[in-house]
Amino acid sequence: MIIVLKKDATEEEKDNVICKIKSLGLSVHVSEGEERTIIGAIGDEAKLAQTSFESLGGVESAMPITKPYKLVSREFKHDSSVIDVDGIKIGGKKIQVIAGPCSVETEELLLDCAEKVKASGAEFLRGGAFKPRTSPYSFQGLGEEGLKYMSEAKKKTGLPVVSEIMDPRDIDVICEHVDIIQIGARNMQNFRLLTEVGKTGKTVLLKRGLSGTIAELLMSAEYIASQGNSNIIFCERGIRTFETATRNTLDLTAVPVLKEETHLPVFIDPSHATGKWHMVAPLSKAAVAVGADGLLIEVHSDPANALCDGGQSLKPTTFDTLMKDLRKVAEAVGRTL
Amino acid sequence: MIIVLKKDATEEEKDNVICKIKSLGLSVHVSEGEERTIIGAIGDEAKLAQTSFESLGGVESAMPITKPYKLVSREFKHDSSVIDVDGIKIGGKKIQVIAGPCSVETEELLLDCAEKVKASGAEFLRGGAFKPRTSPYSFQGLGEEGLKYMSEAKKKTGLPVVSEIMDPRDIDVICEHVDIIQIGARNMQNFRLLTEVGKTGKTVLLKRGLSGTIAELLMSAEYIASQGNSNIIFCERGIRTFETATRNTLDLTAVPVLKEETHLPVFIDPSHATGKWHMVAPLSKAAVAVGADGLLIEVHSDPANALCDGGQSLKPTTFDTLMKDLRKVAEAVGRTL
Amino acid sequence: MIIVLKKDATEEEKDNVICKIKSLGLSVHVSEGEERTIIGAIGDEAKLAQTSFESLGGVESAMPITKPYKLVSREFKHDSSVIDVDGIKIGGKKIQVIAGPCSVETEELLLDCAEKVKASGAEFLRGGAFKPRTSPYSFQGLGEEGLKYMSEAKKKTGLPVVSEIMDPRDIDVICEHVDIIQIGARNMQNFRLLTEVGKTGKTVLLKRGLSGTIAELLMSAEYIASQGNSNIIFCERGIRTFETATRNTLDLTAVPVLKEETHLPVFIDPSHATGKWHMVAPLSKAAVAVGADGLLIEVHSDPANALCDGGQSLKPTTFDTLMKDLRKVAEAVGRTL
Amino acid sequence: MIIVLKKDATEEEKDNVICKIKSLGLSVHVSEGEERTIIGAIGDEAKLAQTSFESLGGVESAMPITKPYKLVSREFKHDSSVIDVDGIKIGGKKIQVIAGPCSVETEELLLDCAEKVKASGAEFLRGGAFKPRTSPYSFQGLGEEGLKYMSEAKKKTGLPVVSEIMDPRDIDVICEHVDIIQIGARNMQNFRLLTEVGKTGKTVLLKRGLSGTIAELLMSAEYIASQGNSNIIFCERGIRTFETATRNTLDLTAVPVLKEETHLPVFIDPSHATGKWHMVAPLSKAAVAVGADGLLIEVHSDPANALCDGGQSLKPTTFDTLMKDLRKVAEAVGRTL
Repeated sequence: MIIVLKKDATEEEKDNVICKIKSLGLSVHVSEGEERTIIGAIGDEAKLAQTSFESLGGVESAMPITKPYKLVSREFKHDSSVIDVDGIKIGGKKIQVIAGPCSVETEELLLDCAEKVKASGAEFLRGGAFKPRTSPYSFQGLGEEGLKYMSEAKKKTGLPVVSEIMDPRDIDVICEHVDIIQIGARNMQNFRLLTEVGKTGKTVLLKRGLSGTIAELLMSAEYIASQGNSNIIFCERGIRTFETATRNTLDLTAVPVLKEETHLPVFIDPSHATGKWHMVAPLSKAAVAVGADGLLIEVHSDPANALCDGGQSLKPTTFDTLMKDLRKVAEAVGRTL
Repeated sequence: MIIVLKKDATEEEKDNVICKIKSLGLSVHVSEGEERTIIGAIGDEAKLAQTSFESLGGVESAMPITKPYKLVSREFKHDSSVIDVDGIKIGGKKIQVIAGPCSVETEELLLDCAEKVKASGAEFLRGGAFKPRTSPYSFQGLGEEGLKYMSEAKKKTGLPVVSEIMDPRDIDVICEHVDIIQIGARNMQNFRLLTEVGKTGKTVLLKRGLSGTIAELLMSAEYIASQGNSNIIFCERGIRTFETATRNTLDLTAVPVLKEETHLPVFIDPSHATGKWHMVAPLSKAAVAVGADGLLIEVHSDPANALCDGGQSLKPTTFDTLMKDLRKVAEAVGRTL
Repeated sequence: MIIVLKKDATEEEKDNVICKIKSLGLSVHVSEGEERTIIGAIGDEAKLAQTSFESLGGVESAMPITKPYKLVSREFKHDSSVIDVDGIKIGGKKIQVIAGPCSVETEELLLDCAEKVKASGAEFLRGGAFKPRTSPYSFQGLGEEGLKYMSEAKKKTGLPVVSEIMDPRDIDVICEHVDIIQIGARNMQNFRLLTEVGKTGKTVLLKRGLSGTIAELLMSAEYIASQGNSNIIFCERGIRTFETATRNTLDLTAVPVLKEETHLPVFIDPSHATGKWHMVAPLSKAAVAVGADGLLIEVHSDPANALCDGGQSLKPTTFDTLMKDLRKVAEAVGRTL
Repeated sequence: MIIVLKKDATEEEKDNVICKIKSLGLSVHVSEGEERTIIGAIGDEAKLAQTSFESLGGVESAMPITKPYKLVSREFKHDSSVIDVDGIKIGGKKIQVIAGPCSVETEELLLDCAEKVKASGAEFLRGGAFKPRTSPYSFQGLGEEGLKYMSEAKKKTGLPVVSEIMDPRDIDVICEHVDIIQIGARNMQNFRLLTEVGKTGKTVLLKRGLSGTIAELLMSAEYIASQGNSNIIFCERGIRTFETATRNTLDLTAVPVLKEETHLPVFIDPSHATGKWHMVAPLSKAAVAVGADGLLIEVHSDPANALCDGGQSLKPTTFDTLMKDLRKVAEAVGRTL
């Protein structure tokens, strides 16, 4: 931690800061500049976490030096992690695609969709059973019934399934039916939910919140990892900005930033980012080119009548064409798909 | 709902949209402009909620006309609601102040703080027992023990108490000890939690999320109200913007906007918005002047050693001065405090 | 400047950074922490401005310590500046109100407005002659003719006048007719224009850009001051955020932040911030309560037919009531108006 | 234009709105819904531009239907425009790369850089002579001298040159030396400058402002086009958001959005967006994959000693590798480079 004193800080205020640092078991390094005195606290910065240096007299600012995330950081584990789900590798050379409808509606629709996305090359099936909806009057998902349809679809197609959890009380039923548990954007900082999925061994797909910084996203993953579960996939799905031409602004720069900071895989969800199906193809190509390890794409046989987010869903035939195009881009950047 | 067709939409596409609307039980009003055809859907717009008109061919945009929130809207209830908590009126002429430490640390500190804020005129005591912290390694709150201290402080001072819920599994213990349940900013769209507090009769203080629009905030309140609980207080506490001089940007315009849209009371939390104790006084005055019904202010006897957010906490003496100053501003705008 | 090295920086990389600092004439202070080495550059930080330390090998981050603005900073001049325009003091105990139409339309309308706002207590008349409009097809202002009407209105009412400059080529004609030159939000970083107004002795009202940070706003003022003109008034008028309920988000926290950082006066423009006339009154009161030195309010005799921004303009009678209400708030916070 | 009346609007208020529309020469279409009355104004919407319907009594909202940009829109010209600069086609199948230093420093450095980027396949040379700098104390560019070096470099390498204009008074000297005039992000809404470059026949590279919406960017281009110059290239270079891990957030979705709205070419500047040289490669690949027509990349022989933005500049060898990689991605999406 570096503590910058105000220009007019008194000797007493300076001593007070030094005392405080020493009392917490760190050593002190003082540097008297021409305009400011700077105090460096040397040692385990975690010990300073409970102290609010900025409320001490004479302090202008306090800047941590060490990054607050450990287990998920690339400093902690230098090599990129490859996560194995049912024998399928996530985070390796092959880019993985998770596809399926926004919400599970009927068993038939889901199965139909599962078979089609599998035929096009998707390796995972997505489908929401518990749906976070802005309005209490919108379709809230089929709940446990939806999860059973997911299990059934897996049995028939072999595709491992991905579905979202919204409530810690659903942890058992989710674990029973699902291969990858999704934490949605609105729950990126639902710390109890993070802790709960951290206690399971299941792979977690952690979406970035609409106003979540990358640093906060990493800290949310740290909540999961600190419970012993490091099977975490990051997913960027658009952040909230002033631009209204698209629903959100897809932050593709998050991919190289995350690749630098963490050893864990990074996915992109182009469907939620834009909210418009015809933007999905170009952004999927860009996601592959920028270095993402996978994609999460909404596919629905009848988008106009989807109970949720139809406007952003691809029809199976469009998805099939996209997969072919993506393969070329993947090869161009030395990956497969 | 108004549906604008693309300039080059075909007759067939137009008929398709009209059919869709009629099939949902609404009537149709077509207006052929010089450049665009516009289709109005007349009737109960809620019936259109499940349809994604923007994924139909030939549709450029679809704009809802009716507001999606009902029970919390001023259209539904024209007069401002006054909520009664233990005989204290919230939303009336008197501006209410909720004060106390960010987190409950020890029984002694809490009681000391409670007595002091009461002496200065606060009518409610705040204190966090379950703390949402960005880092899993930070102090997470005392949990149920903290709630007991809150109960105890209420017994001794008579101040009703406010504390945050983070997990639907804590609903019973929270209800046992707390008079106003706080939904924190990070949980504004934790729909399960909203539903759960909606099932109780307790007053809910609903904080706006860091990237929550006012429309979304109102929809989150609608989740609570739709369960039968309309004892809801809105709380603006700063939104996330590009500015880094303060932790968040306090959106005081939200007060007149909310006053127009809803009959429910609106509070301001200047402590979390800025993260800096010396900004609390000017922003509290501005909050009263702009028409807020109450304030949520952090007060701690020893900010430098607070286990959480010390930098934004007022000392009891500073709080006392502020309360005196606020009374003058309240009078200037025709309120009391 | 503090330079933090990467965990795996080599001795050679460290030496390279040290050499670079020394070659620029500063001395070096090295602090070897447990996880990172930190290098402090001691001396005149301005000498480092041309060097990109972050592109040197082994450097993780480089943090300046000294603030980049000098002449406008409160460190440079501790006491608040009071600017005298035609004998009227700006930045003193009395809060000043600048009022008038968004754009100058006819001489009659302007004069009528000037007389009315004067009667209500405004001390300055505003009116746009050169109008920055998003569309090339919108009314662009009367230009020099509009400025002449402003001069005329001043002659008849005695109110000093405020008008916007958009082009350095207009500097002479603006100086001839105007008492305070406004730099609009879109030109906050039009550095040539800033330099030009800096060369005059005229008072400048510098508006914050829609995405201008407070630090950038201060640097823009520094452009003006560095030319010898320190008669600068800051004006916050709303920033661009994700919220769409109002046109912009008025950042009232900017007032205490600016008051801390600079000795210059700070105004608020509640009209442009919200774009809605009925929000102007509550936000004006909040602006006075938070500590602003003045207000910039749009007033138009016939808002529905205004050639520009009618939706945000107050009618003269509404303005008159507002001025009475503002006086009470001003008194409550120890000011006059 | 669609005007939605308030639920409690009176007959008189309704008639007033209708009268107003008719008086402006449009016809009216009234649709009485269950909850709201909606009034459609049919005819040339431009005639309504001067009227603020939202300040008329009883009006809840007024929504334009027609897009405000004409000449630059794809509705106006369906086929994509290809701009010819010195025989080089911009906006065709071949993706064009503009490369060079942020600012022109010395003739030698510039020429060295020009030769190297040419050898790697760049077809245009960039270099700033007039530099918009946040601080008045930073290097402001060599001015006319820098432009002469650009001319010289063109003479020697044959590469057409791109440089920024900041002041309408520089229009002649810029036109003398430069092939493509750049309007920087800070000047996206410097309407006088837009008008001035619109009067020339030179190709204009128009950068999106840090908080410029795509709709505003298109309107700024309309300023240029309305003067008779439709040789306009759009350039996305990152927008300002809450994220601080990178300098700005590159909005690649802007590419498909612009491709839909306009017939003009779209470029990406990955250097300014991130501010970090090692992010330039992945984002350049993504830009090509998403459908951009060109790239603007900073290259400097000695980034650590660059007078401006060294941290984001590629060394010539890194640039050379990148060009090779980009060619593969271009081919994967059916383009050349």
